[in-house]
Amino acid sequence: MTAGRTAGESGSLGTGFEELWKALAPIGRDDRTGGYHRYSWTPAHRECERWFRDEAERRDLTVEADGNGNLVAWWRPDPARVTGGVVTGSHLDSVPDGGGYDGPLGVVSAFAALDAIRSAGAAESAGGTAGGTAGGAAGGAAGGAEATRPLGIAVFAEEEGARFGVPCLGSRLLTGALEPDRARGLRDTAGVPLTDAMERAGVPVDLGPAPDLLHAPSAFVELHVEQGRALADLGAPVGLARDIWPHGRWRFEFGGRADHAGTAAMSDRHDPMLTYAMTALAANKRARLTQARTTFGRVQVEPNATNAVPSLVRAWLDARAADEPSLDALVEEIRRQAGDRAQRDGTRLEVHPESWTPRVEFDVRLRDRLAARLGSPPVLSTQAGHDAGILAAARIPAAMLFVRNPTGVSHAPEEYAEPADCLAGVDALTAVLTDLLAG
Amino acid sequence: MTAGRTAGESGSLGTGFEELWKALAPIGRDDRTGGYHRYSWTPAHRECERWFRDEAERRDLTVEADGNGNLVAWWRPDPARVTGGVVTGSHLDSVPDGGGYDGPLGVVSAFAALDAIRSAGAAESAGGTAGGTAGGAAGGAAGGAEATRPLGIAVFAEEEGARFGVPCLGSRLLTGALEPDRARGLRDTAGVPLTDAMERAGVPVDLGPAPDLLHAPSAFVELHVEQGRALADLGAPVGLARDIWPHGRWRFEFGGRADHAGTAAMSDRHDPMLTYAMTALAANKRARLTQARTTFGRVQVEPNATNAVPSLVRAWLDARAADEPSLDALVEEIRRQAGDRAQRDGTRLEVHPESWTPRVEFDVRLRDRLAARLGSPPVLSTQAGHDAGILAAARIPAAMLFVRNPTGVSHAPEEYAEPADCLAGVDALTAVLTDLLAG
Repeated sequence: MTAGRTAGESGSLGTGFEELWKALAPIGRDDRTGGYHRYSWTPAHRECERWFRDEAERRDLTVEADGNGNLVAWWRPDPARVTGGVVTGSHLDSVPDGGGYDGPLGVVSAFAALDAIRSAGAAESAGGTAGGTAGGAAGGAAGGAEATRPLGIAVFAEEEGARFGVPCLGSRLLTGALEPDRARGLRDTAGVPLTDAMERAGVPVDLGPAPDLLHAPSAFVELHVEQGRALADLGAPVGLARDIWPHGRWRFEFGGRADHAGTAAMSDRHDPMLTYAMTALAANKRARLTQARTTFGRVQVEPNATNAVPSLVRAWLDARAADEPSLDALVEEIRRQAGDRAQRDGTRLEVHPESWTPRVEFDVRLRDRLAARLGSPPVLSTQAGHDAGILAAARIPAAMLFVRNPTGVSHAPEEYAEPADCLAGVDALTAVLTDLLAG
Repeated sequence: MTAGRTAGESGSLGTGFEELWKALAPIGRDDRTGGYHRYSWTPAHRECERWFRDEAERRDLTVEADGNGNLVAWWRPDPARVTGGVVTGSHLDSVPDGGGYDGPLGVVSAFAALDAIRSAGAAESAGGTAGGTAGGAAGGAAGGAEATRPLGIAVFAEEEGARFGVPCLGSRLLTGALEPDRARGLRDTAGVPLTDAMERAGVPVDLGPAPDLLHAPSAFVELHVEQGRALADLGAPVGLARDIWPHGRWRFEFGGRADHAGTAAMSDRHDPMLTYAMTALAANKRARLTQARTTFGRVQVEPNATNAVPSLVRAWLDARAADEPSLDALVEEIRRQAGDRAQRDGTRLEVHPESWTPRVEFDVRLRDRLAARLGSPPVLSTQAGHDAGILAAARIPAAMLFVRNPTGVSHAPEEYAEPADCLAGVDALTAVLTDLLAG
């Protein structure tokens, strides 16, 4: 990698991004749907991690791991300096049949940004102020500042919670937000305990807080595809995160009485499917009225036979709102309507909270610094949980960059970002990391 | 078994029933719920069949099988006579976590009735008119008439359709109502083809019409626990069937777009769960308005993740009505309302009919004969399919006896009949079989 090559070819950054992206893209993809199945520590996910380690090795980065399945690839321009680094990155696991951008875009962009920063530094050393022209590719990012802090590229484990049910499992364990004992009790739908799954994949297991992995970072910046349409509506390729809405999961159990679908008179039934159906509609209506979000996306029916009135319907409510009192009121109102309907249906309702994440506001000083560096892009609230939010809650200065998603669709094969917007994301990440690494 | 014992002990019939019942009761029962899991050709179901063969052997009956998994145990008082017999019986398979009476009550009662008929015949031979006093146990059934026709006790295969999805599979194949090729295409939820399941269980396989198994019967009488509360409301222990409502199964596929449960704005979603939920409520309301029956008891969601708006909800409508035009109108109205809601939700609706059984009226002459013999018990319509209905549709004179169900609950662990009512059922079956066997 020579200064001339970097400074002279403005397309080199894009080419680097594209090559990284192309190598990762086929892993775990369902050719029928185009969606991804990269559940933590399954072969597809392991292959993603091998790709990560290979890319780190190609760049002479040192990969460190904790006992929670999290990885960080370190670049240390000053080998003596270990703490106070800047960490970027995201995750490589997916939801079932998920999109290709949620997670991987942050990791691929991190490598591309590192390449740009190192190229700019090399150009700087070689040609003095000539490095400034690298801005053609790196959006003016690398101009001037010289990296002194370490830069880490992190891959957090089980961010989606698609296999073991707890989202951001890796970052929660790392920061101590989740008790190791609770994690040890987690099993996947096949009954495999978390630690067995890790061990079978050859991952070192030592669940619990792991402050050493990040070496007391001065900042964490996660780049992520936007999961809504705010940037598309605003006509901006890149935005910054203000906060993460409080959100949680509640398991609604509607108990009824199994019965024959033909012979049981309608008036004799205690059909929990009806109570559930009304609750799903009520949750939707309530979310629309209050500018909140509710989803019933997971349902289990017993005995789930065509000719039997169900004895039990289990349905999981995912609810999110702009602030905690609003979320409490939202869930309480849905629970109230479900309870009223259960009385009419002669069914029983139990509501079990399964997870709860309070509102997280990202570090204001860090956000202001990034906003200044990037020319004040839009600042957005997000309704999705992220590892950056877990780190922020643990008082690590954290920020997020969002890349425009033209349709807003996420967690689905249609999830997408335009190549030009991905490159704009890399430019922005390069710019803010360059700035953060310098001071 | 001596004449003296039979004629003298009016409790002996009851004891016979109880012993038969007790031997069968534990097989395939879930001790947690008290419900049964006797799916065709699984170990529990095979054990039920072994019980059947043992009881047949104990009575010197000849068990014959067709290539569809159906069994008949024959008693031939006149060994020269093969055709024109009287057949009774039911089935031994269950729905998931079903009751213990639906099916087995008809088989156990058949053995008990046969025992009573043979005892009465033996008493008759031994004591001339003394046999008339056996009526104390057999409800006056065995008085006078001597059996000349063969009596067959049938066990039909896969009546519930719980494993391969087509109810009354055995009787449909036997009568030619179902194409063998269609049956060959059936698989259980684990992907096991029907013929493999039969072969693995050691059952001879030769799917298709098997008229020889029943030997051109003069009548078929199925005794069954009532699956509603009509007899309880009327205060009668036993009733007769008039007809079976037309009924069918329709698979509703609601297609939407998977999306992130947090970030996708409510107004941007195409959530098929909402379309399904409204359809489930509409089906219930419509059935209540028209004195029909509708159930959505089986649902599959994709990807079925808590934090994803579903891409697909599959739900099966079971619908039944008193006549075919009413059933057509019912399903059409549900489909119309589902379609309207799909337009509002931006989702797609497909409706696939999976099974359809026209109205079956049982043989009027046979019913009148039974009614006269039993002192005009209540005559009921039933909303449940039965093998007797399949035989009736194939122009075999068929009738059904129902035994009172105090709660009307069926296809559930709570399904029940009082011991005294079970014995009243045996008495009634004994009486009508005695009459039919004589002429």
